[in-house]
Parts: sequence; C-alpha cells; structure tokens
Amino acid sequence: MSSDFSFGSAYMKGRYMPVSEAAIPVLDAAYRRSDVTYDVVGVRDGAFFRLDDHINRFRASLTRLRMTPVETDDDIRVILNRIVALSGLRNAYVSMECLRGAPPPGKTRHPSNCESYLCCIAIPWVSVASDEMFRRGMHLIIPKVRRIPPDSFDPTVKNFLWGDFTQSLFEAEDAGADYAVLLDAEGNVTEGAGFNVMCIVDGTVVSPAHGALEGVTRASVFELCEELGIPTEIRDISADELRNADEIFTCTTAGGIMPASRIDGRILTNDAPGPISSQLRERFWSRRAEGWHATPVDYSVVAGSN
Amino acid sequence: MSSDFSFGSAYMKGRYMPVSEAAIPVLDAAYRRSDVTYDVVGVRDGAFFRLDDHINRFRASLTRLRMTPVETDDDIRVILNRIVALSGLRNAYVSMECLRGAPPPGKTRHPSNCESYLCCIAIPWVSVASDEMFRRGMHLIIPKVRRIPPDSFDPTVKNFLWGDFTQSLFEAEDAGADYAVLLDAEGNVTEGAGFNVMCIVDGTVVSPAHGALEGVTRASVFELCEELGIPTEIRDISADELRNADEIFTCTTAGGIMPASRIDGRILTNDAPGPISSQLRERFWSRRAEGWHATPVDYSVVAGSN
Repeated sequence: MSSDFSFGSAYMKGRYMPVSEAAIPVLDAAYRRSDVTYDVVGVRDGAFFRLDDHINRFRASLTRLRMTPVETDDDIRVILNRIVALSGLRNAYVSMECLRGAPPPGKTRHPSNCESYLCCIAIPWVSVASDEMFRRGMHLIIPKVRRIPPDSFDPTVKNFLWGDFTQSLFEAEDAGADYAVLLDAEGNVTEGAGFNVMCIVDGTVVSPAHGALEGVTRASVFELCEELGIPTEIRDISADELRNADEIFTCTTAGGIMPASRIDGRILTNDAPGPISSQLRERFWSRRAEGWHATPVDYSVVAGSN
Repeated sequence: MSSDFSFGSAYMKGRYMPVSEAAIPVLDAAYRRSDVTYDVVGVRDGAFFRLDDHINRFRASLTRLRMTPVETDDDIRVILNRIVALSGLRNAYVSMECLRGAPPPGKTRHPSNCESYLCCIAIPWVSVASDEMFRRGMHLIIPKVRRIPPDSFDPTVKNFLWGDFTQSLFEAEDAGADYAVLLDAEGNVTEGAGFNVMCIVDGTVVSPAHGALEGVTRASVFELCEELGIPTEIRDISADELRNADEIFTCTTAGGIMPASRIDGRILTNDAPGPISSQLRERFWSRRAEGWHATPVDYSVVAGSN
C-alpha cells in the first residue's frame, strides 16, 4: 500500500485513496461555481500545528456557506490523522475541503438543491517560499489588480475564488518579483495569494484590520510578539505606509513567517530579511520544535504504513 | 455505446467519455484556484446557435488568462460537434472549458508553471427558468451582496468565481424570489448568476454599460430590437431606475429571454411578463426556428449513435 500513497493520500465521501485518484466530478458546483471552502493545517516532525484552530475556522466557514457535510469535527480529526498516517509523511500539507455537489436529476442548479461533501488531502510539505527567498528576503509588489471586496465575498471564509490572486502572481512575475500584496478599493493593504501581510513601523508589528483572512499563523505571530514584548496593532495600512515600513513580512501555514527585502522600487533593511522579522521567524520554529500547539499524529492507526 | 452517453458526453485531453466519467484532479488549479474560463453554446433542434461567436469569446478569454491549450478553434469546432453527436442530443447545453492544471513535480504552484487543458461537455438542455417562471414572470430581488468588481476580475472573461452569485441565490431564496440582480460598488446594475439584465424605460431597451459579461444572447436581443425598430441604449442603470422600469427581463444561453414580473416589493406589468419583453421572447424563438445564426450538428460523425 505504501507506494500508492507516496505522493499523498485523500479521503472523499467515506473512502480513502491515493491523492492521484481523488477527482471532482465535472458537474459539481465545487468546480463549476467554485462553491467550496477549505482550511489547511501543517504537519511538521509528525505533529499537527494548531489542529483545533483550523478545524474551528473550517466549521465556521461551513456554517457561513450553509454547508452540512455528514462528518462531525471529531470525524474530521480522525480522517486527517488517518490520511497523514496512510501517507507516512512526517512533514505534510493537510487540507480539509467541503465541496458543493451537483443538483439531483430534475432539480435546478440552485445551491440549496446540492449536497455538500468532504474531501481531505495530505501531500508532502512544500513551502511557498524557496530557500533562496528566505536567504535574500521576498521581493514583493503592489499590483494593479484589487482584492475581491468583503461585500462580494467574505475573506474570512477561506476560499478558492483566486481570480484576483492569480492575476497578482502574473503581475509579480512580469515585474521580476516573487509575490504581490493586494489593496482594497480604498487603497489599503489586504493580503496576498494565500498569505497575510504584516509590517513593522517604529517597533510595532502592524497588520490590516479588514479585507483579509484571520490567519492562524498571523495569530501565532501575535502570541510570539506578546512573549517577546513586541507591541502589535491591527488597523488600516495604506499602500504608502507599507512601502515606507521599517520591515515587512508575510505569513502562512505553507511557509511560516517570510521576511521581505524589497517592495516595488524600494529596498528594505539592506536588501535582506529585517532583524525583528528574522527574530520572529527563528522564535516561531524554535517554539514549534518545543511542541508548541502540537498534536502528534498517531501513525499506528495504519498497520504496515511506511 | 449509446446508453453510456445518455446523461451527456465529455472531451478531456484528447479522450471522449460519458460525462459521468469526466473529473478534475483535486490538485489542479482549475479546482484549487478556480483558474478556469469557459463558454456555453446552446444546441436546439440539432443546431448550434452562434457557434463562432462563442468560440471567439472563449478564445479572447484564453488569451486574457494566458492559457494556451493545444487545440485550435477548428479543433474546438470538431470536438463540440463530436460530443453532441456522441450524446445523440437534439437539445443540449454545450460547454467548452479551459482548466489550469497542477504544477509539475519540483515546481512552485505559480500559474505560469501549470499547463492548461481543454474539457468540453454536452448535457441535456436544462432551462434556468421553469415553465411556471415563464408563465408568471421571474421574481427578482436586489441582494445585499455586491458583484465582484472589474478591477478584481474582468467580468467579460466568463468564469466560475461565483462566490457572489451563489450568495445572491441564497438571498433570493430567503426572500421567496427566483433570482437576484447584483449591483456594483457605485450602486449600478451589473448582472445576475449567469445572466444579463435588461430593462425597458419609455420604450427603450436599456442594458448596463459596465460590470457584466458581454452576453451573446444580449447581442441577439440588440439585433432583434433593430429588426423590430425598438430603440436600445447601453448605459449605467441605478437600482432605483431598475425598480421603476416599465419592464425588466434577463437573458442567457440557458434560458433565452426571461421576462420578470416582480422586483423587490414592486409588481410590474400586472404581475405578468411585459408586452415588449414577450414580443422579444417570441421573436427570439421564431427566428431560431427559422435557422437564424444556426450551425447544424453533423450527427453522422459517430457511427451507431442514437
């Protein structure tokens, strides 16, 4: 069984399978309408990080989208553990997803006619930032494309409506940068393609008050700041304030804390990761190594797994 | 072979299959990022309607999203004909879709690392409006949710980023209505979940200038108006102007011209489809029956199809 699961494992509608076999029917609203919500929890050295925080946020998103999969939170805990155990991965990217299906025969495609179902996957860990990016700092831009506003879709419900993010990635690439930080209609900083944005102004770590996901890694940064005695603030940040910040970093489950060294035309902190950003990053991983917010994976549930 | 294709047929990456077998790998950006564009052409009485207009719009969307499937426009014509012939359907909903795939091993998930591929499906025709709705007129609302703005995603690129539309359908259902007409940030009318909106003010057929798909059915309405000597206008329409219009109708490939009889608290044209809307609807189907803009399906390409 181990070789089948070497690229990852999946759970879908009560069945476990290699991730390469997990596929979405072309008539499901999950694909045809991007009618999906999801959450991603990281596994590092054989332990989930903040598992319950991710499941709680996922459940809140389900409620918001009126999705009612049959699985309880406890079921989800069991499923996530099992897919990681099946994969045998010690470091994994683990996603729980709820998909709206297709309408039954004879019914209209109204979403209330479609049942929703769970899909969970565990794949080998990949960082959204390369070793080189961590060494030199991320190169960011502020793109032309604007973030989809909260009155069109609530950004605290984690979603796959990535049209704006995808365009921002092309804009970043065209400009020779790594990633883009999107503004809202008022010109304030929101977030980027799958990550929160934070900046350091006069020694205070600042993060946007609106228009972004309430990131679990961001919440961890606030906890670290409290441990280290670094003041924090949640408020609006204009594009100019971001460009002129002392330091900037981004954060996400699939990368941790990622210090930036350039934004648009400006070079920050001698074209290298800044001191406070680097301190937070080191602290994040040393606390993780100590078992901070960790839930060990039980690999014994799968007899003979690798 | 006929029974396998009785619920519809699909083409994906060079292969033809029953639509029930067509599925999107869970790691493809088409699902995980809603990184897809599509177009839908109708088949009625064994003929495509405005086939080239749909293929041309689809090609423009591909270019805009930097997608380069291997198939040419001529290939697409052959594929669409073949899936309809395989299904044997005389009345079909035929969709051409281009999906961004997954990054190859060792590459980041940046969209420029992912190849795009074509998926086309032909399924039995379903109207988005029921017979009852056509008889009594559509009941519309203006929902709280706002249309995703053009500076976040270009609405002339037909897409599956339906988060706002899905929410509008729930709002409509909660209000006891059929569908919702979304406003933009400035409070002007845009479009609804898969349809254009038009209204009649002092004998002129008016449609929004911004924030909506350039609908092929809408273009057909303009042609019919010219044939009938009805003046038309493309300009901004405020929510109040729509609510106070003499008539309102919506239009889309999967429903044609759909007159409304209610919007929010207001009853239009004696709670029934209005006279000009009804005239346009009748003309639309009588012109279709005459072979207007029709391209007959060649069913002979599949030996033994039903």
